[in-house]
Amino acid sequence: MALKLYGVTFSTCTSRALSALYEKGVDFELVPVNLSVGEHKQPEFLAKNPFGVIPVLEDDGVSFFGEFRFFGCEIFVYGNVFSTATQRVFACLHEKNLDYDFVNVDLSIEEHKQPPHLARNPFGLVPAFEDGDMKLFESRAITLHVSYAYQANGTPLMAEDKKMPIQSVWMEVEAHQFEPTTGKLVWEVVFKPMLGMTTDDEEVVESEKKLEEVLEVYEARLKESKYLGGECFTLADLHHLPNIQCLFGTPLKKHFEARPHVKAWCEDIMARPAWVKVIQKLSV
Amino acid sequence: MALKLYGVTFSTCTSRALSALYEKGVDFELVPVNLSVGEHKQPEFLAKNPFGVIPVLEDDGVSFFGEFRFFGCEIFVYGNVFSTATQRVFACLHEKNLDYDFVNVDLSIEEHKQPPHLARNPFGLVPAFEDGDMKLFESRAITLHVSYAYQANGTPLMAEDKKMPIQSVWMEVEAHQFEPTTGKLVWEVVFKPMLGMTTDDEEVVESEKKLEEVLEVYEARLKESKYLGGECFTLADLHHLPNIQCLFGTPLKKHFEARPHVKAWCEDIMARPAWVKVIQKLSV
Repeated sequence: MALKLYGVTFSTCTSRALSALYEKGVDFELVPVNLSVGEHKQPEFLAKNPFGVIPVLEDDGVSFFGEFRFFGCEIFVYGNVFSTATQRVFACLHEKNLDYDFVNVDLSIEEHKQPPHLARNPFGLVPAFEDGDMKLFESRAITLHVSYAYQANGTPLMAEDKKMPIQSVWMEVEAHQFEPTTGKLVWEVVFKPMLGMTTDDEEVVESEKKLEEVLEVYEARLKESKYLGGECFTLADLHHLPNIQCLFGTPLKKHFEARPHVKAWCEDIMARPAWVKVIQKLSV
Repeated sequence: MALKLYGVTFSTCTSRALSALYEKGVDFELVPVNLSVGEHKQPEFLAKNPFGVIPVLEDDGVSFFGEFRFFGCEIFVYGNVFSTATQRVFACLHEKNLDYDFVNVDLSIEEHKQPPHLARNPFGLVPAFEDGDMKLFESRAITLHVSYAYQANGTPLMAEDKKMPIQSVWMEVEAHQFEPTTGKLVWEVVFKPMLGMTTDDEEVVESEKKLEEVLEVYEARLKESKYLGGECFTLADLHHLPNIQCLFGTPLKKHFEARPHVKAWCEDIMARPAWVKVIQKLSV
């Protein structure tokens, strides 16, 4: 068999090539590329495709990777589908209708603390991100890059210039008020039980009190405007999605539902098609 | 005495008017305006100056507030000189050579938890900020606004477009890695002793370990480029200043000094004239 396709089945770009080959009824072999150890950036693979992206089609020793932008994804997300920070990046890419290759980083075997991943994120956290030459980490820096670099795609996630400072305020509120509080609760109430660890009830009570205070401010804000940054959905809202989704699966949902404007906002943003696609990844 | 100047002596804009009156040898009365309770936004003051900014000169019942931008400051910072978040905003305004009115919020009598301040920052934190009609809170949203709105003034604090995503990464690293760790240490080692509270030694040991890990990553980054965002000083560096300054007054300074690139970077950014001016405020 001469025809070889180098790629991975969970890559949307490899899948596109696979579909074409199946449709044509061509006989071929799928050669897996281990993205998490960076095989696609090693000399052997780069000799096949100097851009270091999958898939590559090899016919009798001749490599074919076609028109770069159309044949292969140039966006890579290294992360874990259960990581809320990774989900934040997924949500943004789906809002922008962008194709990307997802590279699973296996947290259970501490793959995120190994050299290949540390080269992508020196803090050993997920996600990490590549868009061509642009290598980034920190989920909110990634969503900011995607929103500016792909301004014309899909949903505009940035407010118009004059309203940008208000969007910034609420992005900072998410980072410094919402995330520290809900992040603790997600850890205690969702992840600890999932990992067989014991929830610290004292921590929950304290964070729950803080959550109520934070949500009171959100209720007042959302009385003034439909979304946090104004009348349009922006990154300021999007960044909240993963933790809200997690907490809606717990009794803590009641704090969101007790506040009518917060409740309506949560329901609205969780129903966005881009977010629904992210959630579907969890059940695959 | 017919001539009245409504303002406050610690306002740079009132001071400018005062100097002019003293130089002219004019007889006048200084009428204090209580900015922290928002007296400058009340009907009585707005009747004198519809922009709600000090100073206002009143001559025999006729109000004079001159050319708005030149006579009065339009930028107000509501905060506390000892608050690291307030210092972050000061540093940015000085880098941009902008005049501003500082309104002290007395934390010792919980002025930040009272309605006038809660209307400025619903979380009851300092600083809050006004730039004409633009009312903001969250120090990093304020510095972002100032950097974009006054792009042409003083130091350019934003990287050029292509390098902006990397600056964003390090702004996020400051917010999610550096601040949580150093913020805890500043609280335990600087503020608690100052307030007569007992330092939690266990917390210090744990945060110190985390600080070393974080600084290892900074050392590697600062080996690659002079500043965090690249070869130029940007907001990514500026945001670190208040906590670095605090910790350099403690034995924890050793962790910064043990890493040559981190040490050089700290010394460089702490010596910036804009930052030196902020520090001078503390000793007034």
